[in-house]
Amino acid sequence: MTKVSTAHIQVRYAETDKMGVAHHASYLLWFELARTGLLREAGHAYREMESGGALLPVVEYNCRLYRGAEYDDSLRVETRLVEVRSRALTFEYKVRRGDELLAEGWTRHLCVDDDNRTRRVPDAVLRAISAYKTTPEADA
Amino acid sequence: MTKVSTAHIQVRYAETDKMGVAHHASYLLWFELARTGLLREAGHAYREMESGGALLPVVEYNCRLYRGAEYDDSLRVETRLVEVRSRALTFEYKVRRGDELLAEGWTRHLCVDDDNRTRRVPDAVLRAISAYKTTPEADA
Amino acid sequence: MTKVSTAHIQVRYAETDKMGVAHHASYLLWFELARTGLLREAGHAYREMESGGALLPVVEYNCRLYRGAEYDDSLRVETRLVEVRSRALTFEYKVRRGDELLAEGWTRHLCVDDDNRTRRVPDAVLRAISAYKTTPEADA
Amino acid sequence: MTKVSTAHIQVRYAETDKMGVAHHASYLLWFELARTGLLREAGHAYREMESGGALLPVVEYNCRLYRGAEYDDSLRVETRLVEVRSRALTFEYKVRRGDELLAEGWTRHLCVDDDNRTRRVPDAVLRAISAYKTTPEADA
Repeated sequence: MTKVSTAHIQVRYAETDKMGVAHHASYLLWFELARTGLLREAGHAYREMESGGALLPVVEYNCRLYRGAEYDDSLRVETRLVEVRSRALTFEYKVRRGDELLAEGWTRHLCVDDDNRTRRVPDAVLRAISAYKTTPEADA
Repeated sequence: MTKVSTAHIQVRYAETDKMGVAHHASYLLWFELARTGLLREAGHAYREMESGGALLPVVEYNCRLYRGAEYDDSLRVETRLVEVRSRALTFEYKVRRGDELLAEGWTRHLCVDDDNRTRRVPDAVLRAISAYKTTPEADA
Repeated sequence: MTKVSTAHIQVRYAETDKMGVAHHASYLLWFELARTGLLREAGHAYREMESGGALLPVVEYNCRLYRGAEYDDSLRVETRLVEVRSRALTFEYKVRRGDELLAEGWTRHLCVDDDNRTRRVPDAVLRAISAYKTTPEADA
Repeated sequence: MTKVSTAHIQVRYAETDKMGVAHHASYLLWFELARTGLLREAGHAYREMESGGALLPVVEYNCRLYRGAEYDDSLRVETRLVEVRSRALTFEYKVRRGDELLAEGWTRHLCVDDDNRTRRVPDAVLRAISAYKTTPEADA
């Protein structure tokens, strides 16, 4: 069974724009929080990965927005992994407000060292996060 | 011949993160500047479109990052349209530093009115921006 | 005895800059969270104040930074009121990491209506928040 | 005669919030642009100062807001220095839209080295920026 990591977000005033809802770039910041939440939950705080020389810069991202998130709304971001490779990871996110799906997206990351050279994701991390790996079929 | 709108960006200190390069969400803000630059160039400032009741919220976005942009770098964002429909537009962006392509992406927008109901893009806007419409083949 | 409202903050990656610590503007966003936390705790969510026609725009702010806050640090923001008047409020903030005082600051707000005209802070709000009012002497 | 450095800003959509005007934290980002503009104009790009081991972290800031800045507004930020010491600088900013003064503020900076130890501002920088030094009286 695939594990899912859930982050809880409260929409900040500064994250809204003059349309009255959260600016579309805010979702990337929430994805970032959700992703580091998953890593922490798996026992590998991103902070420690970085200081250990394994960085995970974003190399591609995508987001679809279905409904606006308003100031002070309480949101859940559910995070899974859809790709777990030795040098690349893809996280997938669903942003919900109660029963409503507000947005979904994904971010793809390469693992690099301090000199920005591609390297393997540490084995302990790979093992720990594999429990969150899903398949497109399973995630209906 | 397809027109291209070019925006000039200087990377802000606040846009960098502890990796030392611009945070991946910054590209969305630059896309936003570039898109409103294209509309202004076409004679239809987004500010006036909004006050006239034609808003263009982002409904999907995508970005691929090839190389980091550093603080104070001078960047060009080249913007074209890859979809021009009566109720939906897709803008495409290429972020360059001199000869290097740092990133590329696109944003898809629906046209809505003040009550968030889908409406037609004003005809004058459609005509004006059609000069920036490209095809995947032409944009090699 | 003066009540103090405490907000818990975890430093976001996007809030850091290339100096490796949180950008100085991030403190204003944390102050904003802390201030709305105090209002909620006092029974008057800012969201409801706004929809009731009582807005609290910032008219002045100040912040002194003593030590940098790092990515993923757990911070506490302690919030009090140093001025409670019928049309103006001043909140004061102390940002702590464990025993260390990282920064302190204040924000001054006018109460305005939907048309941006000065108005009285609703009486119920004034009463509720007066418990958080301190004096410079008491707050040593 | 005191020199003044002028930066030109166009308010970004993402800088607005649901009140419909620029979020109060945006002014700090504009101050940052204006300050680096002054340094560049004086012949000492901040980028080069940093790579030369002279950093200028903000240790205190203040801002008073008189009128809201709207999306797409063209603003001027006029920057002077009100304190030029061997290890500390204070910049002062006035944000104008045409004839209107929208906001004013200041930021105080210490000069530190790569290890965050206080150091002297490089002499060449001190000499170059002294032309922008004003006095409270002169700046009426």
